[in-house]
Formats: sequence, C-alpha cells, structure tokens
Amino acid sequence: MKLLDTINEPAELRKLPRAQLTPLAHELRSFLLDSVSKTGGHLSSNLGTVELTIALHYVFNTPHDRIVWDVGHQTYSHKILTGRRDQMHTLRQFGGISGFPRRIESEYDTFGTAHSSTSISAALGMAQAAKIKGEHRHAIAVIGDGSMTAGMAFEALNNAGVQEDINLLVVLNDNDMSISPPVGALNRYLARLMSGQFYAAAKNVGKSVLPGPVLELAKRFEEHAKGMVVPATMFEEFGFNYIGPIDGHDLESLIPTLENIKKLKGPQFLHVVTKKGQGYKLAEAEPILYHGTGKFNPNEGIKPAAAGKITYTEVFGNWLCDMAAADKRLVGITPAMREGSGMVKFDQQYPDRYFDVGIAEQHSVTFGAGLATEGLKPVVAIYSTFLQRAYDQLIHDVALQNLDVTFALDRAGLVGADGATHAGNYDLSYLRCIPNMVVMAASDENECRQMLTTAYRYEGPAAVRYPRGAGIGAEIQKELTSIEIGKGEIKREGKGIAILAFGSMVAPSVAAGTELGATVANMRFVKPLDVELVKRLAADHDYLVTVEEGCVMGGAGAAVAEALAAEGIVKPIMMLGLPDKFIDHGDPAALLAGVGLDAKGIAASIRQRFAGGEPRLVVNNT
Amino acid sequence: MKLLDTINEPAELRKLPRAQLTPLAHELRSFLLDSVSKTGGHLSSNLGTVELTIALHYVFNTPHDRIVWDVGHQTYSHKILTGRRDQMHTLRQFGGISGFPRRIESEYDTFGTAHSSTSISAALGMAQAAKIKGEHRHAIAVIGDGSMTAGMAFEALNNAGVQEDINLLVVLNDNDMSISPPVGALNRYLARLMSGQFYAAAKNVGKSVLPGPVLELAKRFEEHAKGMVVPATMFEEFGFNYIGPIDGHDLESLIPTLENIKKLKGPQFLHVVTKKGQGYKLAEAEPILYHGTGKFNPNEGIKPAAAGKITYTEVFGNWLCDMAAADKRLVGITPAMREGSGMVKFDQQYPDRYFDVGIAEQHSVTFGAGLATEGLKPVVAIYSTFLQRAYDQLIHDVALQNLDVTFALDRAGLVGADGATHAGNYDLSYLRCIPNMVVMAASDENECRQMLTTAYRYEGPAAVRYPRGAGIGAEIQKELTSIEIGKGEIKREGKGIAILAFGSMVAPSVAAGTELGATVANMRFVKPLDVELVKRLAADHDYLVTVEEGCVMGGAGAAVAEALAAEGIVKPIMMLGLPDKFIDHGDPAALLAGVGLDAKGIAASIRQRFAGGEPRLVVNNT
Repeated sequence: MKLLDTINEPAELRKLPRAQLTPLAHELRSFLLDSVSKTGGHLSSNLGTVELTIALHYVFNTPHDRIVWDVGHQTYSHKILTGRRDQMHTLRQFGGISGFPRRIESEYDTFGTAHSSTSISAALGMAQAAKIKGEHRHAIAVIGDGSMTAGMAFEALNNAGVQEDINLLVVLNDNDMSISPPVGALNRYLARLMSGQFYAAAKNVGKSVLPGPVLELAKRFEEHAKGMVVPATMFEEFGFNYIGPIDGHDLESLIPTLENIKKLKGPQFLHVVTKKGQGYKLAEAEPILYHGTGKFNPNEGIKPAAAGKITYTEVFGNWLCDMAAADKRLVGITPAMREGSGMVKFDQQYPDRYFDVGIAEQHSVTFGAGLATEGLKPVVAIYSTFLQRAYDQLIHDVALQNLDVTFALDRAGLVGADGATHAGNYDLSYLRCIPNMVVMAASDENECRQMLTTAYRYEGPAAVRYPRGAGIGAEIQKELTSIEIGKGEIKREGKGIAILAFGSMVAPSVAAGTELGATVANMRFVKPLDVELVKRLAADHDYLVTVEEGCVMGGAGAAVAEALAAEGIVKPIMMLGLPDKFIDHGDPAALLAGVGLDAKGIAASIRQRFAGGEPRLVVNNT
Repeated sequence: MKLLDTINEPAELRKLPRAQLTPLAHELRSFLLDSVSKTGGHLSSNLGTVELTIALHYVFNTPHDRIVWDVGHQTYSHKILTGRRDQMHTLRQFGGISGFPRRIESEYDTFGTAHSSTSISAALGMAQAAKIKGEHRHAIAVIGDGSMTAGMAFEALNNAGVQEDINLLVVLNDNDMSISPPVGALNRYLARLMSGQFYAAAKNVGKSVLPGPVLELAKRFEEHAKGMVVPATMFEEFGFNYIGPIDGHDLESLIPTLENIKKLKGPQFLHVVTKKGQGYKLAEAEPILYHGTGKFNPNEGIKPAAAGKITYTEVFGNWLCDMAAADKRLVGITPAMREGSGMVKFDQQYPDRYFDVGIAEQHSVTFGAGLATEGLKPVVAIYSTFLQRAYDQLIHDVALQNLDVTFALDRAGLVGADGATHAGNYDLSYLRCIPNMVVMAASDENECRQMLTTAYRYEGPAAVRYPRGAGIGAEIQKELTSIEIGKGEIKREGKGIAILAFGSMVAPSVAAGTELGATVANMRFVKPLDVELVKRLAADHDYLVTVEEGCVMGGAGAAVAEALAAEGIVKPIMMLGLPDKFIDHGDPAALLAGVGLDAKGIAASIRQRFAGGEPRLVVNNT
C-alpha cells in the first residue's frame, strides 16, 4: 500500500514520522503527473509546491490554522492531502472539483483564489479576526514571486507590517516565474537575495536549530534569521521578520524552519525557493509550456498540437504584428500574460514596443494612458476578468481624458475549465456605462480583426471583446480594414421576430433565426448602439430578442431596452444572456447550452415566449 | 508691482534671478491663502508645495518637460504660475477652473489626476514615449507619501526600476500625511529615513554642490547621494537612484539638487520633506482641518460651523458606533478616509475594531473578506468613486464567495466641487450586474440608517449608497431597524403615470408626482428589484418613469426595463438619470437641475414625453 493512500486528511499526515515525508513527496509528485496528464490542468506550479504543501500541513494544525493559497493553481497537492485524492480525476470538469481552492469544496480551502495577489490581504483579515476573537491560530499566505508584483500584495504588506501580535506568516514561493517569464525590479531584487552566500547560509538555518530545546532556540533563531541577510531586506523594512531564502524542495530545511517560525510573534516572512515543474524534466525545462496543459502522455510529453482552428488569441496576436508593421506608433502592453494574450510573436518582432509590466493591471492601463498623451497608440491586451482590476484606471485615467487607448479583451464570456473566477461576464455592463467608451463584440475571427483595426484607428478609448478559444472558422482577410463605428448589419431577413445578437451569440442566433424564420442582426457595437437599426427592426417586427454572452443585467440587451425607451418605442422584448449567478467550471459549449445560449436554446426560449409567432402583446398586465 | 504679477508663464519665472525666488514664494503663499479663503478648496497641501512647485518649473523646461501631479489637489501654485492666476477666483465653481489638473485646461496640465497614486504610471508612459520617439524630455511624477501606499504606485516603481535610459524623476513629497494621519509600514520606514543624521546630512547636499562646476560635480553628487543613506534604501532596491531626504521648503536645497538630477540618466527618486500648511500657523497646527476648506477669514481661521442639517456621512458615523455597541462582531475599515467617511468617533470609541489600511482600496475589500470568513462583520466605508479601485476584489473575493461584507458608499451621484473625477455615477451599473450583491439607495437620512442596518444584518454582500452632503432633514429613529429586502414602498398614489424613484431622487420625484398627480414609489432596492411592485405599477398605470442619480446606462431604470421584459410586460417607459457624459464641477443642486434631475426637470421631462396624461402608446414605430 502506498503511503499516499493512507492520507485522507492532514491529521493523518501529521502522524507520519518525518522520515516518511520524502517518500510521500515522491508518491505525490507521481500522482500529480499521472492525474494532470489525464485531466489537463496546471502542472508546473503544482510540481513545484509538493514539499511546501506537505511541510505546511505537517507543521501547522490545519484546518484550525488557515492557509490561503495565492492564485490557487498550485493547490493540487493540497487537495490531494485534504481528502480529495479520489476526486482529482474530475478536476476542472463539470460537476467535478475546481482547479482552484473553493470554500464550498472543503473546510481546508479557507479562501477562494484564482486572480493573483489576494492572499496576504485575506490572511491578514483572518489573523486579525483571531486576535479580535481571542483565538490562537496561524494564518498563512502562500504567494508566488509573480503575484508579489501586484499592487494589492504591497498594500497588504504595508498594512500588515504595523499590526503587532498577529500570527501572520507570508510564505514567498519564489520560483522566478509568473506564467510568463518574470519582469520588474522586485524580481531582480529577489534574485539578488537568492544569489551567493545568502542562499548558502540560509540552507543551513533549519538544520542548525534542530537538536536543541526548541523553545529556548526560538529567540536565538529569530536573531539569527534577522541578521542573516545583511542589511535589512525590503520585507523587514515593511515590518516583517524575514527568514530565508531556504530550499523549498528540502523537507529537512522546510519543516524545522516552519516549526520555529510557528513560535514567533508578529508578521513573519519566509522566503522559499522552488522550481516550477520540479521532478519532471520536461516541465523543468519548459515551465511555461507545462503551466497549463491538456491531456498528454507523461512519457512523451506535450506534443505540438495539430493545426486546428485559429483561436481569437492568435487572431489578436497576428493583428498586433500586422498593425505594428503598418504604424510605428503602436505600443503593446500586457500585465504578465504574454503567452495567454498571444503576444510572443509581437515581443520577438517588436521588443522595443512590447511592455510586460508584471502582474499589474492597474499600472498597465495608466501606463498606457501616459503613452497615449504623447501621441503613441497603446494597445492593452487584457482578459475581460482582469480588466476588473483596472476599472478605475480605465474610467479616471483613460475614458475621462478621452485618451486613445485600445483594449483587447480576451476571454470574454464563459471561459470553461477555469470557472467563475475567470468568467468575463460583466465587461459589457461595466464598460458601456462609462462615457466616451466604444465597446465592440466580435462575432467571428475576421470581424475581430476588423474591430481591432477599428478600435485602433478610433482616436479615443475603445474595447474589443472576444471569447476564449477558437471561433467559427471565418476566413480572415489580410488587409487591415475598419468597420463603421456604431453600425450593425443584418445577417438574415425574416419576419415577425428580430434577433439582435452580439458577438459570439451571432452564429447561434443565425441558426436559431433560420429555424424560426426570424430576422437576425449582428449588432457589432454595444456602444454606441446602432439605434437606427434598432428602430428599423422595431418598426418592421412584432418582437425583439437580444442575445449576448454576458450578464443580462445592464448588458447589451439593456442597452437596446434603453434605446427603445429613449425613442418612445413600445415593443415586446426578450433579453437572453447569462443568468445572475456565478457559473461553475465545465466545458464551455455545454455550459452555454446549459443556460440556453446555443442555437437550440435560443430558439426554444423564443418559441416559449412568443409562441407560434402569435402576437401576445400585453399592454396592461391585468 | 508684485513679483507674482509678472509671472504669466513658467518661462518668465525662469528668467528671475534665484534670489528673487524666496520673495516670490512668500507672495505665492499669501496669494494662495487669500484666494482659497475666498473660494474654499484645498489649503494645507498647497501651502506645503509652494517652493517645490517654484523649483520644478524653475529647473525644468515646462511644458516641454512633463510634470504629473499625483492627486492634483496640490496644484494651485502650479496653476497660478502657469497662467491661471486670474482665474483662481473661479476655482471649483461651475464654469471655472478645476481644483485638479486637467489636460483641457492647460498644456502644463499633462495628466488629469484626482484619484491618488496614478502619477508614476503616467509619467513612466511619458518617459517611455520620449524614448520611443527619440525626444529628449524629462517626465516628473510628484507624489505624496500617502499616495505611495497605494498598490499601483508600487506596480509603477517595480516596472520603472528596470527601464533604463529613461528620464523619469519621481519626487516623493513626504509630508507625513495622507488626508487622514499616516498609517502603514511604508510611512514608518519613511520616518526612519527622515530621522537623525540622514536628514541632517541631506540638508547640506544641495548647498555643498553649489559653488563648483556643476557638470563635473554631477557624478560625484550621484555617488554621494547614493552612499548617503547607508545601506541601500527600498527605492534603490527598486532600481531607482535615491536622493534625499532634503528640505522641501528650502529653495537653496531644492534647486541645485534638481539641477543635478536633471543631468542623471535612468530612474531618479528624490525624497523631499515638506510640511502641510507651511507658513500658515493655523493650518500647520491642524492640517486635516485645513485640508479642504470652505470660505473663511484668514485672520480668524476656520470657525466651527453652526449646527446645520446632519450629513449622510454623519448618519453613517453615528450608525457605525451604535451598531458596534450592539454587535461586537462589527469591524470598520477605511482606505485612508477616516474624516471623509465619518469614522473619527468610531476610531475613538472602538480603536481595536477600527482599521485605516492606508490608501489601499483593493486591500481594504479583501482584508474585509478575510475578516468575514472568520465570522466577523466588516463594514467597508468607501466613496462610490473609490470603490472602482476595488471592483475586482468586490467581485472575486467578496461576491463570488457570498461573504458577509457591508459596503457603505458615500458620495454616490454628483459630488459638486470635486467634479467628474470624484463622481459616484456608475455604482448602480457596475454593482448590480454582480451576482449575490444587494444594492440599496437611500432616499433620506433615516432610511439610510435603516438600510445600513439591513445591509449589516443581511448575511452576504450588500451595499448602501448615499449622496454627498446633507439629506432632506428626515427625523432619525434611534432604534436599529431593518427594512424588508427587495421591497419598495409607495410614497403617493396617483393616476396614469407611475414614477419609480431611487435614492436621492425620491424627494424631487414626490414633488414632481404631486404636481402631475402621478403615483410615486420609493424603490429602495436596485437589487433585488421589487418586481412585484413593478408589476403592480405597470398594471395600474399607463406610463412608467424611472428616476435615479446615476448613469442611465445599465442603471436602476435599466433594471426596471429588464424586469418588464422578463415578465412579458409591454409598457411605455422613460428612464431619467445622468446623461452619458462626464459632468464638470459646480454646485450640486445646480448641476442636478442642469441635467433635469430636480423636481421641475423631472416634471418637465414627464410632461414632454407623456403630454397631458394622454396615452401615446406606440406599438409599431411606423
């Protein structure tokens, strides 16, 4: 029987003699590789945190002590050790366990994460709560070096460093990576801390305190740890007791160090060095490739995918290079998502105009605004869900000054396996209420390219949203052509019912409209809305139906209703879109079908409401 | 003739011999005090930056060199020296100049600011643009120590520190203050930098380089400056060349230091120490009181205001103390707005449950989420406009996990003198699209208290918005009473027209409804909307009118339209609210009247659309 099979909760882990932990780590790593290669998921980050996860659950009394995992894509070992080993085969699938920690999934998941850099704030809240309630417990934030570059991590450090008598431990999991290669001054600084004698000296700290009486040693350890890195590190300047760096794959360093830290008072900062992909040579060599994987054969590694349909991300990446060739004012900005946003080629071809600013969405937008004031034309590539991080900057720094910044919003709508945390469901609502914004939703690959060109040429703030993954397979024109601002198009003429479709919902709406004999419009612009088209469709049809892959509340359908009201038009209207709830992970097509946003569902909803095409006009609801 | 009268642009300032600058500073300070005491405005911050402003415009070649003023409430001297002396009497008034820098106001205002901590990002964009375009110019960010605590300032430092060959200067204006007293580890760190020999040594730096040949001294100066604070400061660890701290009121320090910095390459960081309120004893003694003032007699100082109507801020502050007395789980959180949010009394009475986290909106919300996971009941007091900074945290950390956090949104709607940057116009749209949120708008002081109690007792995320300033003078009940979630109330019964009013628009709607004989409902909840009430009003009336002090796009009126659509009700509807544009500063009542949101305007709009109460129902717009 394997060791791992005996661990159904951390309490069982804590009963193991320490000598068994290294074999356990080997088993866990094998399990991880086997499991992720079958389900797909995050690999590199999880291989890198096997020992750290074991050590934390071994030393701390979870779930009484709270561990908050920043980003949370490194929690597979944590899930396996906290009773979910048998559910790992359902990972990221509909009805299965999440790829991130979730409070509703386990009492060991103290805080749901997925967006980066929230862990210190949350853990500080927990530590303060323990203090207020007079409870003795530890709160631990495990945060990567990439996540440390985001502003809110610093806000939390700044706040935590002055709070005394709290049992807060920040573990910096320094693997010299965010998803993309690391950037920024902090990373350079960490590299300096890791280099040379610091690291060598640090590796012995844990061991040196092993033999003696622990309590007595704690104080000496503290002094030793504090003096170790001479002079004070940045983290000490923030009021933390800095310990490290130590080898995050060496359980004989990790465990005694954590045991000693456990006895210290006040905010503690442990700098742990790990390697993404540790133990699986292919992932160690190419951690970015193995960051998030599909299914693959572990013996062969990830194979280059057969050329499939081009993704929207690729459409954007190609457009960016083509537009950069055509216009030397173009500058491309990404908050640490070079690969995810399709900017690798642009980085290679135009390094002087490529800016990876780190996980720093707020800064990315205002940096773009600054470039725009000088007549350059910044393109900020950002996922819909991450633009939420820069909402104020978009309003206050870009839109209010009507600056010429183009926003390329990838992953708009449902995103599938990443689930509710990454859903790009709100952008239409939160963007269209902002003055000066132009907001477009692409219905196919070629239109996406045209809309990007349109947004780029428009001399003000403009956003183009497009979904995750491949489109419908539309042929892409090479030329850089624009479309007219604020103009939609009729996709098919029909009678009785007019479907006003936005972005990704155009294709299924055309299918539904064909079945129903309805008119279908590709509205293209959520803002400015094509009011003339809305008026025409209202005049010529008995019913209007809006369809969007975004929340109904305040979305594109609401824009149509507002336009009708402003024009004094009274007309039966139905708004189809995402319901007012957070939608779990699963296959995107199945999820859309589940909320009635495939062709069949759209047709069914229309039939149900406007049965048989019979006008069922209710003027007074009596 | 005064010196100041001869300065109509910085080029004229640069012609003055240096000996005249100190007299000029005296004149400028007198002018400021005289001017602000007549118009009201920000005083302490402007008295503190007189010399720094003179020095920057004297040394740098503005507007070719770019100065970005963080927050921007310290730019009165800048405005006076850049051709706007004669317009200072119109400050913050309708049609007059803004209290903040604005690009449309002057070419010297390179970047509009008002929300804090944007300046380094913007200036870095400008510096990068100069590099890309091959232009030689300096970009300078002037940022206060309070603003440095916000995450985006760190994101910008982290990004800037690795960008070589850029002419970026960050001037840290360290006055040991945000609006509220300073908090956090960074502030403590800065205090340490300022203390003892560092500061004493620094004061002589400028002078010591005065006599010799400047060019030759530059390199020595650099080495000297770098070595001055031993060991490296945090800012050097971020890749900046750190110089300082120097006395920000001593032009003989400032000017030579800036002249030397001007010759250095790469990111520079100058630490300047100033005093808020400098030169006006009363403001020096009470910088918070003199932060933002109304009109006052400079010889007498600000007098305690006669007891007027209670403000919504005070309603909140009183409620917070009362609820804290009733429930020891209550925790109050402010991102550096103790005074503005009415939390002074709470801080005094419940210091252990009061958390000023610094200018750190993102952290404030997730810190609250962490507290909520442990069963405490955090109340985050935040202006509507500043919640934009924590939008992702509200979605991802609070709403998605359905955590019990109460948001008290002050300054919702138009804010008057602060203008478009501070407008709380978008919260209804950006909040109601988020699942799990409860969103209320208070129509009077007593209802505000009831809604706060309701939000607090509701075991999930809930927001109460209320306007800036005083309410209608409603009597406030002492008891802590709740209202039913999702239920509005009828304020008056009428015929033909039903006005569905939200929050601050209830009172003028009642007046308009009385004039028109219309029914008026106080809807109370933007989410969940009282759909039963909407249905009833639709059934019993010919026309519906929604009225809100927020953007129409995606707002409360859109919510009503969505409900009608979902219920299959077809009914003429008009949505009144704020238009889709940024609205300048001015008297709030006049601004509201200007967009038709007073009783008269509401009545006029209704009459115009639904003339004479005659049903003008358009089913087909043909």
